[in-house]
Amino acid sequence: METWLTSLITKTPQEGFELAIKLSRMGVKYTQPSAEVRDKLRPAYAENADSLTMASHVVAVNFQTVAAANNYWR
Amino acid sequence: METWLTSLITKTPQEGFELAIKLSRMGVKYTQPSAEVRDKLRPAYAENADSLTMASHVVAVNFQTVAAANNYWR
Amino acid sequence: METWLTSLITKTPQEGFELAIKLSRMGVKYTQPSAEVRDKLRPAYAENADSLTMASHVVAVNFQTVAAANNYWR
Amino acid sequence: METWLTSLITKTPQEGFELAIKLSRMGVKYTQPSAEVRDKLRPAYAENADSLTMASHVVAVNFQTVAAANNYWR
Amino acid sequence: METWLTSLITKTPQEGFELAIKLSRMGVKYTQPSAEVRDKLRPAYAENADSLTMASHVVAVNFQTVAAANNYWR
Amino acid sequence: METWLTSLITKTPQEGFELAIKLSRMGVKYTQPSAEVRDKLRPAYAENADSLTMASHVVAVNFQTVAAANNYWR
Repeated sequence: METWLTSLITKTPQEGFELAIKLSRMGVKYTQPSAEVRDKLRPAYAENADSLTMASHVVAVNFQTVAAANNYWR
Repeated sequence: METWLTSLITKTPQEGFELAIKLSRMGVKYTQPSAEVRDKLRPAYAENADSLTMASHVVAVNFQTVAAANNYWR
Repeated sequence: METWLTSLITKTPQEGFELAIKLSRMGVKYTQPSAEVRDKLRPAYAENADSLTMASHVVAVNFQTVAAANNYWR
Repeated sequence: METWLTSLITKTPQEGFELAIKLSRMGVKYTQPSAEVRDKLRPAYAENADSLTMASHVVAVNFQTVAAANNYWR
Repeated sequence: METWLTSLITKTPQEGFELAIKLSRMGVKYTQPSAEVRDKLRPAYAENADSLTMASHVVAVNFQTVAAANNYWR
Repeated sequence: METWLTSLITKTPQEGFELAIKLSRMGVKYTQPSAEVRDKLRPAYAENADSLTMASHVVAVNFQTVAAANNYWR
């Protein structure tokens, strides 16, 4: 896989949250490398409330990591 | 996306909890940007006990992050 | 919303556990503000083993936060 | 509720694990106070592999808290 | 229950991971003490992808605890 | 089992993420040692959005551990 993650440090909390989203998506991508398959799954998934909550949960876990790495941008 | 998160620091624990709720909702919004779709999903979701528990779980994870950032408002 | 959370500090671990329960319920309440709807959901939910385990899980996550805030009542 | 939790400190890791189990069960008990209902739910639950994994998950989260409280019994 | 956990310290990360697996299984065993029932559940469970992911999740949570106890074997 | 984990330290965050993926897969492998069975489960699993989110969740938990071990590569 190409280089996609060189640092957990971000300038702002929001960039950190967006990095958490990227980490969550990469966790999926390593399991399902086909962009075609992932795109096919997206519509049903993005219209299911529980699926969206599950996605937000993964982001929250990754955001814990990124926030700790940045000492909570204090 | 517009700027929506500039700090994890809040004045009180309750404001921290409410920030955790915002983070949880933004985790959904990044996956499903359409407010129309999200609004359509809400009624069924908000009347399903397990869906509500799942939502509360995500808030709890985000609240861990916000509470740590604020040194637990000690 | 009225003020409901002014501190994470409790006198005993048990009070801390009970605060974790309150946090878990407030996570639900922010998503479903209607007490009537929440009461309607309760019977089925409280008699489903997996729903109860899920609820206990959220309490466990919130208890981590409260326990850390209180330096584990050491 | 009667006093059931006065300290997170235990003599051994195993006692800590058993405290984590107690915390997990109390998380259920606060939601479903009826011992009769909980006993009725137990047979089906204890013979469902996913339900058992979910229970073990909650114990793991509570064990994190107890282990940290005891400085990992180092 | 017999003594099965006297320390969280292990010589290597791999032994720590294997201790995390033991902790995860003991979380199940305390809920379902019958080896016969657990063995009966295993085949279906071990051939269901989501059940396996759930099991790996519990191991990951316990591995966090064991790794912290060992100061990450640094 | 052969030696597969001698250190949690990695040179870069991306290698740390990839180690988290390995840990997640090993959590499955210890439960289902048969590569044949695991391969048989993969197609359906890799085309189910919720299964992929669950997998990404486990990676996120393990990444927390690896990131802490590496002091977040700061």
